[in-house]
Amino acid sequence: MAVGLGPLPDFYPVAGLQIGVAKAGIKKPGRRDLVVLALAEGAQVAGVFTRNQFCAAPVLVTRRHLAAAAPRYLLINTGNANAGNGARGMTDAQACCEALAELTGESAQSVLPFSTGVIGEPLPVDRIRAGLPEALANLSDNGWTEAAQGIMTTDTLPKGESRQIELDGKTVTISGISKGAGMIRPNMATMLGFIATDANIDGSVLQSLVSELGEASFNRITIDGDTSTNDCCMLIATGQSQAPAITADSPHLPALREALRDVFMTLAHAIVRDGEGATKFITIRVEQAGSQQEALDVAYTIAHSPLVKTALFASDPNWGRILAAVGRAGVPDLALEAIEIDLGEVPLVRQGGRADGYTEALGKQVMAETEITIRISLGRGPVTETVWTCDLSHDYVTINAEYRT
Amino acid sequence: MAVGLGPLPDFYPVAGLQIGVAKAGIKKPGRRDLVVLALAEGAQVAGVFTRNQFCAAPVLVTRRHLAAAAPRYLLINTGNANAGNGARGMTDAQACCEALAELTGESAQSVLPFSTGVIGEPLPVDRIRAGLPEALANLSDNGWTEAAQGIMTTDTLPKGESRQIELDGKTVTISGISKGAGMIRPNMATMLGFIATDANIDGSVLQSLVSELGEASFNRITIDGDTSTNDCCMLIATGQSQAPAITADSPHLPALREALRDVFMTLAHAIVRDGEGATKFITIRVEQAGSQQEALDVAYTIAHSPLVKTALFASDPNWGRILAAVGRAGVPDLALEAIEIDLGEVPLVRQGGRADGYTEALGKQVMAETEITIRISLGRGPVTETVWTCDLSHDYVTINAEYRT
Repeated sequence: MAVGLGPLPDFYPVAGLQIGVAKAGIKKPGRRDLVVLALAEGAQVAGVFTRNQFCAAPVLVTRRHLAAAAPRYLLINTGNANAGNGARGMTDAQACCEALAELTGESAQSVLPFSTGVIGEPLPVDRIRAGLPEALANLSDNGWTEAAQGIMTTDTLPKGESRQIELDGKTVTISGISKGAGMIRPNMATMLGFIATDANIDGSVLQSLVSELGEASFNRITIDGDTSTNDCCMLIATGQSQAPAITADSPHLPALREALRDVFMTLAHAIVRDGEGATKFITIRVEQAGSQQEALDVAYTIAHSPLVKTALFASDPNWGRILAAVGRAGVPDLALEAIEIDLGEVPLVRQGGRADGYTEALGKQVMAETEITIRISLGRGPVTETVWTCDLSHDYVTINAEYRT
Repeated sequence: MAVGLGPLPDFYPVAGLQIGVAKAGIKKPGRRDLVVLALAEGAQVAGVFTRNQFCAAPVLVTRRHLAAAAPRYLLINTGNANAGNGARGMTDAQACCEALAELTGESAQSVLPFSTGVIGEPLPVDRIRAGLPEALANLSDNGWTEAAQGIMTTDTLPKGESRQIELDGKTVTISGISKGAGMIRPNMATMLGFIATDANIDGSVLQSLVSELGEASFNRITIDGDTSTNDCCMLIATGQSQAPAITADSPHLPALREALRDVFMTLAHAIVRDGEGATKFITIRVEQAGSQQEALDVAYTIAHSPLVKTALFASDPNWGRILAAVGRAGVPDLALEAIEIDLGEVPLVRQGGRADGYTEALGKQVMAETEITIRISLGRGPVTETVWTCDLSHDYVTINAEYRT
């Protein structure tokens, strides 16, 4: 059950990018599971990748190809992560790139492969190879909706965002899709996010944008604390908008960054809203921290506490669990007396104990809502950090106990 | 459902220690919820306490009293943790000590208070005060069984261990009880453990024993990663055995340490076996680590992964989740090719991929058992560490979603 997640937007096509989707029967027959993004010449691609040290073969191949050649195709499959497959995983990822290269006359290095799904099962290369002609035949200027569906795993809804802004009187388009649901504590970006714009962006600026915006959005969400082996967030700039080129000192960079940030945030939050078994969308805001690290330590300790997450599922204002989580977050010399905890607008903890005027009824009122903000003030310094997560429900257990069956 | 946890043993009484239990109606009427341990003069007590920085009022008071006077009474209540109650929590814990002191003619400082239960609700001091006469009237040489029941919260079974050894031809008795169930990732000892012996042990040796053995047992278990605010593990030595006094260089220390270690381990494992919603008892053994820290980082990352824990609940050999957890454990420069993962006796991962000869059937066979060992070899150094945990089941969610209702 997705929390406050609406239908897909009407996507604006991005000039210089075509999308084709196929049903390759990779895990199950009859569903969209193979997506090809075809880039016009001159398009630039930058990405951020999982920091899981056992990153999947396609991640390794994508990084290598990105460094070696100008990308022309992104090849995405769901249903199999091609992770934990040893040397064979690399060969298989490579084989998929070569298959697409043969069909398009481009080099295998111009193909960036992405996989999502179960870990440790050999990639069904033959099915992917067999599905490619259908995907190429379907290439269209606006296949975003089909692509959003074609990258889903345990997601209950497809995720996308699209918008246009004016730069110097010229229209710039941004469209993007993402997927998530489980094994989500991206350590750079969620598995997977693809955002494209027709803006003409300097290569180094593009990389700094995806790094900065990925950090502020996808790197601040967590479902279960499990960082996937396959996470990738890719930002594509086709450069075909008539708007002026964007360089590091361009007066238009702030406006473009803002528009991109909105798209990144919407896609990142959509993953939490559709987290496995999620019934609540939780914002954890840590204020007055002495450093970014301690702010994030506190926020993630709360966000990953099974006791806090089950209390949120139960709409139970069991704030002692939040307090205990703050206390075990590993922040040195934390003064209980200085801590403030608010649930929505309701003061929960002051002077090391229950706030004056707090009543169970007030707490229950906030906990009954589907979107809840937990504010913790550490009274130590100037740093604020925000993390987004969801609750831990029976459905999370069911989904992950039955994932492979 | 407790995993392989038998009934309480026949406890040996510990000379110099009496136990009285009462039904004080602290949270619910009609259950044992108040326990008094009365120590003969000359008994020594050492403890290790929660490292949660918001430790509960009774923990602070116990530490203070332990430093100030010779302990004569341990006063334990379940049903209320007296944590997160600010200044009032300290006053209330103190008031309970004074009430027992008045009834016994001892000083309030000779009373060590312990509380377990819900956090953030005022301690019902009047009920505790009213229950004390009944507990004192029940004081008996062998009230261990009632005490094991009297400290339970969400535990489904009481936990205890008792044994006798011969030192220099003289009998030494060790008896102990513990409780746990949830908010269990002790950072020193579980909430709560009480072990008593009639051995005559030098004070500094007693403290080093409880520190060393608490670290090796209670500090290596985790249910949900949530470190309680109230954890305490207390080791009592009444000194009334006829066996020779134990000093740091005593030839009998190793034998006593071994016997104590067995009791600590049994009590710690009992808490995992009775973890909230537990259906499996999991041993995670990390070998060939470069340091204790990286061994524990890997072990706890696996032990806390909701994806690994739900797969264990489902008896699903979804080893990719174990591999992904190792990869995100934060160990620098981890070489996937060097990693070995075994499930029981079954090789799972070799050379970065699925081990030759591994079949789903073999994996399922091991996962179907209720006691499972996961072995990870990092191929980096000489260090081995073991951590014990349980799976994540629907019952864990149910128990913690309904804990206060």
